[in-house]
Amino acid sequence: MINSRRQFLRNISLAATSVAIAGEVFGAPHKENVRVKESAGGKGLKLGVAGYSFVHFNLEESLKMMKRMDIHYLCIKDFHLPYDSSDEQIKIFHETLAQSNVKGYAVGPIYMKSNPEIDRAFEYAKRVGVDLIVGIPEPDVLPYVAEKCKEYNIRYGIHNHGPEDKLYPNASVIYNYIKNLDSRMGMCFDMGHNMRDQHDPIKDLIRYKDRIFDLHLKNVTMAEAKGTTCELGRGVIDIPAFVKALNKIKYSGVCSLEFEKDMKDPLAGIAESAGYFKGVTAAQGIQVL
Amino acid sequence: MINSRRQFLRNISLAATSVAIAGEVFGAPHKENVRVKESAGGKGLKLGVAGYSFVHFNLEESLKMMKRMDIHYLCIKDFHLPYDSSDEQIKIFHETLAQSNVKGYAVGPIYMKSNPEIDRAFEYAKRVGVDLIVGIPEPDVLPYVAEKCKEYNIRYGIHNHGPEDKLYPNASVIYNYIKNLDSRMGMCFDMGHNMRDQHDPIKDLIRYKDRIFDLHLKNVTMAEAKGTTCELGRGVIDIPAFVKALNKIKYSGVCSLEFEKDMKDPLAGIAESAGYFKGVTAAQGIQVL
Repeated sequence: MINSRRQFLRNISLAATSVAIAGEVFGAPHKENVRVKESAGGKGLKLGVAGYSFVHFNLEESLKMMKRMDIHYLCIKDFHLPYDSSDEQIKIFHETLAQSNVKGYAVGPIYMKSNPEIDRAFEYAKRVGVDLIVGIPEPDVLPYVAEKCKEYNIRYGIHNHGPEDKLYPNASVIYNYIKNLDSRMGMCFDMGHNMRDQHDPIKDLIRYKDRIFDLHLKNVTMAEAKGTTCELGRGVIDIPAFVKALNKIKYSGVCSLEFEKDMKDPLAGIAESAGYFKGVTAAQGIQVL
Repeated sequence: MINSRRQFLRNISLAATSVAIAGEVFGAPHKENVRVKESAGGKGLKLGVAGYSFVHFNLEESLKMMKRMDIHYLCIKDFHLPYDSSDEQIKIFHETLAQSNVKGYAVGPIYMKSNPEIDRAFEYAKRVGVDLIVGIPEPDVLPYVAEKCKEYNIRYGIHNHGPEDKLYPNASVIYNYIKNLDSRMGMCFDMGHNMRDQHDPIKDLIRYKDRIFDLHLKNVTMAEAKGTTCELGRGVIDIPAFVKALNKIKYSGVCSLEFEKDMKDPLAGIAESAGYFKGVTAAQGIQVL
């Protein structure tokens, strides 16, 4: 069991890690350590990390950073849990997260262009045990995605990627595609890319609140295409106003930090951003879960 | 000039650093990069770092961290600028700080037991060009310290160090020593150690506001002796309330993060703490300088 677990974790690692570290992190799960709270929706805001922030780090390294930053929600990327993982591997993955008090709450972003790719994504999400997929589907497969949402009772959040994104540059474009589809069709709202496309993240958050299932929490240096991700308190988006709006709409999804700066050495920037979010919420009397 | 500068900086380094890094950091000063704002006192709060947070790092490494965290005030420790530094070395030191948009605003903490040690500290502060010394003097030399404050027109902030400190466990003890001395005699208020000694940091901040010249900004895990420093948002002190009080009293000193946790790898913890402070202030509409 221990050997197969280690072998699996080694396989999904992007970088080699020592057995010493693996031994420290991947003991038997201690249930008493798991204190992730399930509820939000007006009772607080969930802070998480979008798995892509850790693109250069294996799961052990990523969880070590999350534990250090006291963050408890992770959107699962396939480089941490491949699509073809067995049920046993998925079980081990969740146990490993629980060891660091982390819950994998969704999968993605996943690009999907054809029906078989959509089938695979929903089957993967079901086996992983999450009720949310973050995806980038070709527009012509959207009706099929909506069918699958209904069939699996799994929500689907389309990700907007800014002015360079020919499909989904901002939240409004996504909304227009999905407004007449199943209510489980929504978006993973990337507030930074929305701002880069010169769309107001606060107005759009309120406007599309019923269809925003996930959030890429970030700030950007400029409200234009050449703006780039920066630490949460250093950009052009008014974060205290944004957080106030999140609380007002009783946002119940996760606020997942996606930090696309210093990606090979992201800890300081994510930690500063997490601290900023926690400071803003604390000053507004909002609990962070 | 370049060689002597490098030699000096090498001499004051605690750890060996590469010429490549030195070359990157210590070019000719670009005045246009220096954007430290001098004013506070109701216009905002100055965020800094207490030099002791970097006890395991040389000046180059410390400034690299400060630059990354966008923090502009440093309380100077002697391991970064020795007491016997020449005027030329002090000049280079300040130029080096300016390169990273950092201002050395005070010196210390400095322990001093005798009149010659006090003389040396004031002479050092004068040559460094700061108007504030953070110190731990023996109580019987306090009248002599007060004389020196008057002679040099330099303020003196006594540091409180918690229940283990036989001399100055909390702010009230310091206040009772200095209340009848020259008004330039005050304190470097360590809010964490004050809390560990079970004295309310917010009440004491307001109570002794006229004598608080410097602040060790921190939080602690417990309001008792065995409490330890933790990230600013994770401890028992209500930081939003403390920041509100700082703003209310128009605190014009520096809020210097002293992070006594993970001291050999402090960047993530200081960054999270700086982020938290900036988040709290932003949510309260207070500018950080």
